[in-house]
Amino acid sequence: MATVVPVDRELLERARARQDRLTKPPGSLGRLEEVGVRLAAIQRSPKPRLGRGAVVVAAADHGVTAEGVSAYPAEVTPQMVLNFLAGGAAINQIARAAEAEVYVLDVGVNGPEFPVRERLIPARVRAGTGNIAREPAMSPVEAMAALQAGENAARRAISEGARLLAAGDMGIGNTTAAAALTAAFLGLPAEEVTGRGTGVNDEAYRRKVEVVSRALERARAEVGELRKTDPLEVAAQLGGLEIIAAAGVLLAGAAAGLPVVTDGFPVTAGALLAARLEPNLKDYLFAGHRSVEPGHARQLQALGLEPILDLDLRLGEGTGAVLSFPILRAAAEVLAGMATFTEAGVSEG
Amino acid sequence: MATVVPVDRELLERARARQDRLTKPPGSLGRLEEVGVRLAAIQRSPKPRLGRGAVVVAAADHGVTAEGVSAYPAEVTPQMVLNFLAGGAAINQIARAAEAEVYVLDVGVNGPEFPVRERLIPARVRAGTGNIAREPAMSPVEAMAALQAGENAARRAISEGARLLAAGDMGIGNTTAAAALTAAFLGLPAEEVTGRGTGVNDEAYRRKVEVVSRALERARAEVGELRKTDPLEVAAQLGGLEIIAAAGVLLAGAAAGLPVVTDGFPVTAGALLAARLEPNLKDYLFAGHRSVEPGHARQLQALGLEPILDLDLRLGEGTGAVLSFPILRAAAEVLAGMATFTEAGVSEG
Repeated sequence: MATVVPVDRELLERARARQDRLTKPPGSLGRLEEVGVRLAAIQRSPKPRLGRGAVVVAAADHGVTAEGVSAYPAEVTPQMVLNFLAGGAAINQIARAAEAEVYVLDVGVNGPEFPVRERLIPARVRAGTGNIAREPAMSPVEAMAALQAGENAARRAISEGARLLAAGDMGIGNTTAAAALTAAFLGLPAEEVTGRGTGVNDEAYRRKVEVVSRALERARAEVGELRKTDPLEVAAQLGGLEIIAAAGVLLAGAAAGLPVVTDGFPVTAGALLAARLEPNLKDYLFAGHRSVEPGHARQLQALGLEPILDLDLRLGEGTGAVLSFPILRAAAEVLAGMATFTEAGVSEG
Repeated sequence: MATVVPVDRELLERARARQDRLTKPPGSLGRLEEVGVRLAAIQRSPKPRLGRGAVVVAAADHGVTAEGVSAYPAEVTPQMVLNFLAGGAAINQIARAAEAEVYVLDVGVNGPEFPVRERLIPARVRAGTGNIAREPAMSPVEAMAALQAGENAARRAISEGARLLAAGDMGIGNTTAAAALTAAFLGLPAEEVTGRGTGVNDEAYRRKVEVVSRALERARAEVGELRKTDPLEVAAQLGGLEIIAAAGVLLAGAAAGLPVVTDGFPVTAGALLAARLEPNLKDYLFAGHRSVEPGHARQLQALGLEPILDLDLRLGEGTGAVLSFPILRAAAEVLAGMATFTEAGVSEG
């Protein structure tokens, strides 16, 4: 697994001191200032600059859809992969506006193989997870393969020019897996982390909470206390393949010294996994947005992250993460390009 | 004054209907969806697209600084204009990151003339306002000249390619004028709309509230009930020149059919003035961000605007407005580029 070097605390302090000498009242750029400071430390430069971005949208299916936890049929996962490849999905438009490439990682879609496309990465570990209400999502070896698939996808995006990386997700049923994983990692009951995903009705929502509870009980019976179990083994129990791949994307990005951006509830479940595997990840991690999913706030709190955007998104695909790229770039530009009071000959207050 | 054509309600409805057929759960892009719908109606196109942006930073001085209402000396206004022209200010970096030109409009700076620069627009109506605690900010004729200076600056930016326009402000003391103007237009007491601006201490803050109250009383004594007086006459009483120019920028942008974006407290005081002069402005107006200034929330409420960003900014210069440009562009791209469920062959829930 990729190892991540912590950022230098002295570089953080030096960037903060420089931020305060720039021609603006100290603190007047609000949360943009600390974002810039962190980018300076990550890039080991007093004048950070971000270039093009990339998002790896990891796609996989979920056996748990058999329990009726989603408003959409499972076939939508492969259909949406084709839509990503054709450029017709939300993430394609948002990535274009935010100067980012879209890579689609098939880490476990259930269906025929996809046609060969330049930015499709075929790395199917298995054709969807097991039904976590009844059986493990996958084996620990498969979990490791999914993690490595995410890492490899990130390395490819970086080798092709990405200087800023996000993970995205596509997988009908994946907010159920994300809820189970979040409950397991944070020691919370199912009700507190289960939301309505893409929009289930009241009855399906009650079923979803019940399914998450059963999955947690089953996993506990198999591997013991979940907060004390090896995190990848917990992930193998609860899934999903794309959530684990998202963890790999974030880890490999941070290991390469890039700022990495988490998206909504499923990807941030991956971020929780990644931070368990490698706590230094947090130094490189930004939260693109605050999702409508109630469990997302708990995840961000656990990761110590304040989201950049708050636009009531609940789509996934990496949309909220990539939408924050221009704000991250602006935060870097402020430190890179602004004059100090002395340089500009401006009187201080 | 520029007249603004209201947007076609049927185009709004048609754009909303299209938004719901795109390959995402309806509503899953949250507030981005209504932004896109409004942009479609403004551009009179089901597939809106925004190009380059521009910000007109209007700069002017305030006689009321004699009352000790600001943490910075008045000489900072011309110093910061030079900083804008040299590219060293926050707005320059943010505009670069957000693909926007920066025009600097000298509508009333107190000091020597500035050197000739391509994007400096010299249109000084007078060398700063009168001290509004004791006298009118300017004459009604000067107020009209400031409004027209803003309109002309906007027209130039549009003629040079801007398809998305923001107003910005620079003027030591201008949150005092903005508070007075906001109190006058919304019928609120000084305490409710006066904040700490760029960061005054407790004593200066109390003085600032007192100064705003005195300015309101004085203006009432001169022209009568402020909510019933001609808005430009109220603005002539309370200022400032850059606030009135910002109103002109927004009006001319909307009149030309562009989306226009308001910034923090002073510029949004200008937006209140503009909306009083031409209520159809609201159809074209977006709020870039929510400022830390307490009166800003009252202004946005009065204009019926929900801000796009909420990053605790309190700098002005147009920074919060321009920072939202990429989000506006992404909202347009979603409608312009996404496939419908039918087009993409994706099953609906």
